Amino acid sequence: MITLKTPYLLFTGDAQNRVNAKTATGIADFKPENCLGYYGLPEATLELDNLPKLSIKDAAAQGAKTFVIGLANSGGFIADNWVPAILEAIELGLDIASGLHKKLEDVPEIKNAAEKHGVSLHNVRHCTTELVTGSGNKRTGKRILTVGTDCSVGKMYTALVTEKALNNAGKKAHFVATGQTGILVAGSGIAIDAVISDFISGAVEMISPDIPEDEFQVIEGQGSLFHPSFAGVSLGLLHGSSADYIIMCHDPSREHMRHLPDYPVVSLKECIERNILMGSLTNPNIKCLGIACNTSSMPEADAKAYLEKISNELNLPATDPFRFGAESLITELC
Amino acid sequence: MITLKTPYLLFTGDAQNRVNAKTATGIADFKPENCLGYYGLPEATLELDNLPKLSIKDAAAQGAKTFVIGLANSGGFIADNWVPAILEAIELGLDIASGLHKKLEDVPEIKNAAEKHGVSLHNVRHCTTELVTGSGNKRTGKRILTVGTDCSVGKMYTALVTEKALNNAGKKAHFVATGQTGILVAGSGIAIDAVISDFISGAVEMISPDIPEDEFQVIEGQGSLFHPSFAGVSLGLLHGSSADYIIMCHDPSREHMRHLPDYPVVSLKECIERNILMGSLTNPNIKCLGIACNTSSMPEADAKAYLEKISNELNLPATDPFRFGAESLITELC
Repeated sequence: MITLKTPYLLFTGDAQNRVNAKTATGIADFKPENCLGYYGLPEATLELDNLPKLSIKDAAAQGAKTFVIGLANSGGFIADNWVPAILEAIELGLDIASGLHKKLEDVPEIKNAAEKHGVSLHNVRHCTTELVTGSGNKRTGKRILTVGTDCSVGKMYTALVTEKALNNAGKKAHFVATGQTGILVAGSGIAIDAVISDFISGAVEMISPDIPEDEFQVIEGQGSLFHPSFAGVSLGLLHGSSADYIIMCHDPSREHMRHLPDYPVVSLKECIERNILMGSLTNPNIKCLGIACNTSSMPEADAKAYLEKISNELNLPATDPFRFGAESLITELC
Repeated sequence: MITLKTPYLLFTGDAQNRVNAKTATGIADFKPENCLGYYGLPEATLELDNLPKLSIKDAAAQGAKTFVIGLANSGGFIADNWVPAILEAIELGLDIASGLHKKLEDVPEIKNAAEKHGVSLHNVRHCTTELVTGSGNKRTGKRILTVGTDCSVGKMYTALVTEKALNNAGKKAHFVATGQTGILVAGSGIAIDAVISDFISGAVEMISPDIPEDEFQVIEGQGSLFHPSFAGVSLGLLHGSSADYIIMCHDPSREHMRHLPDYPVVSLKECIERNILMGSLTNPNIKCLGIACNTSSMPEADAKAYLEKISNELNLPATDPFRFGAESLITELC
């Protein structure tokens, strides 16, 4: 399992908006306490409201331990104009963490500088942890897994706000990251879609070990049992988590499964039932806490009407956690 | 995808029996046409009935292209006393193929000799192929996937005898290997449990491409939808294969899921229904051709009575393909 040293200096590169730097903004939104501040190149126009802008030198002097590349570009490569800043951070003794597809050490100057200065390069999208196959064993404590009707429907976001809602309600809850952005936010985890397939459930068991009986792990789901490209990952995650509870994540504006126009989105009812059916192998008591929808495509009144409709149809709480909070999802746990 | 050059020289090492050299015996049983012969160390007592015993030198002179390590040991390592024979084969220009867990190049003498003589080292349990994620697209031709109630219940064996039965019946059928022994038998394939989990279904799509409409691919299954350690692999394989047909493999003597005493073996009926349910995502016309049982624990009369009973209960053909052939499984295809 990757574990990153905190505090972070977030690198926003040449970002012009939040989408360019969605990793940095995700960390700033959910774990500002892990960050000293952020550093952007002179050409960047993005500003993060809740963190100070720092030079790399000042951040190092204040004790920054990891320089987190907060950008996502298509292709997932390290842009040439980011390299001088990365090298400066290395020279000042900071580890580097990246959620990009390309590995940091594939840039020779970065590799050489890291060796010279004895810092670690963390490629959180890649898995180097020694893993074992899953055991199917139950662990102590309670586990909540966010699942979805499709990819990219808010499973990480929902897990993070559920963690926060539980903590706000006086419960001890821990977010468990299974994807690259989640790992950078949480500071630890395993990118489940990057492990060797034999070890999917074993890796999930490793990152969600025994906890006290009255505590919660909120595990970030991946993919969907109904996505032909990634359902194997989703099933291994479901089995490895031994989920006591699932939260179903959904985007009502999605017209077909992501990148697959021939595959319509499954109904919420069928998707919930199928996750319960398949998840019951490793936890016969698995149940659904509710539905988390991304209603950003709807005016607020329409969103509320839609959520009320599906809540009544499925006899489960339904919310848009970004707009209306996640409290309704955890009512029965508090 | 790994593709091995034929003909092979099978290496039986110091094997005392068929179990020690189950890879070699599997290849000799199913693809003797790919083999020039076999070579065992002086201390080996195992003999293969249908192939000549050859020295490495004679095999090389007769045109052997790949020296296949036909042994499986617990731990999956390259035993010290196998190394001189491997080095001799390399010096004579043969590629080396291994289904062991440890990589051939992890033995420095083997790595150095292979570089010096320009031969390939194939570690078929490892996947180095560049893969893409699954598309969920249908391909032309028909696909049969062997699935199972558990691991190690005869899915490779059943796929190979089904291929043979179809070919004997005048159909064109091709075995598609997804595990290390299957790859060595077939000479090509991808070890699905060794691919990065994001690519499970994509890898299966790659090894089962379009074929003429009247031909068959018989795809070797892995694991079980009901095995908590490996169900993700099984589901990715089911989706990636877009199976038109499944054959359910079962060992009636199995008391619990392999290595997991707390997990009872699922019923045949439930396992067939679940594979149909999950497989229908990528092929709504998926159906079960029948049941292939390993009845080696029963006297012949008991085995026949058992097969008749389950055939009647499930209204499907049921056979032990080793004892009674696979013809009954393919009746409706011929």
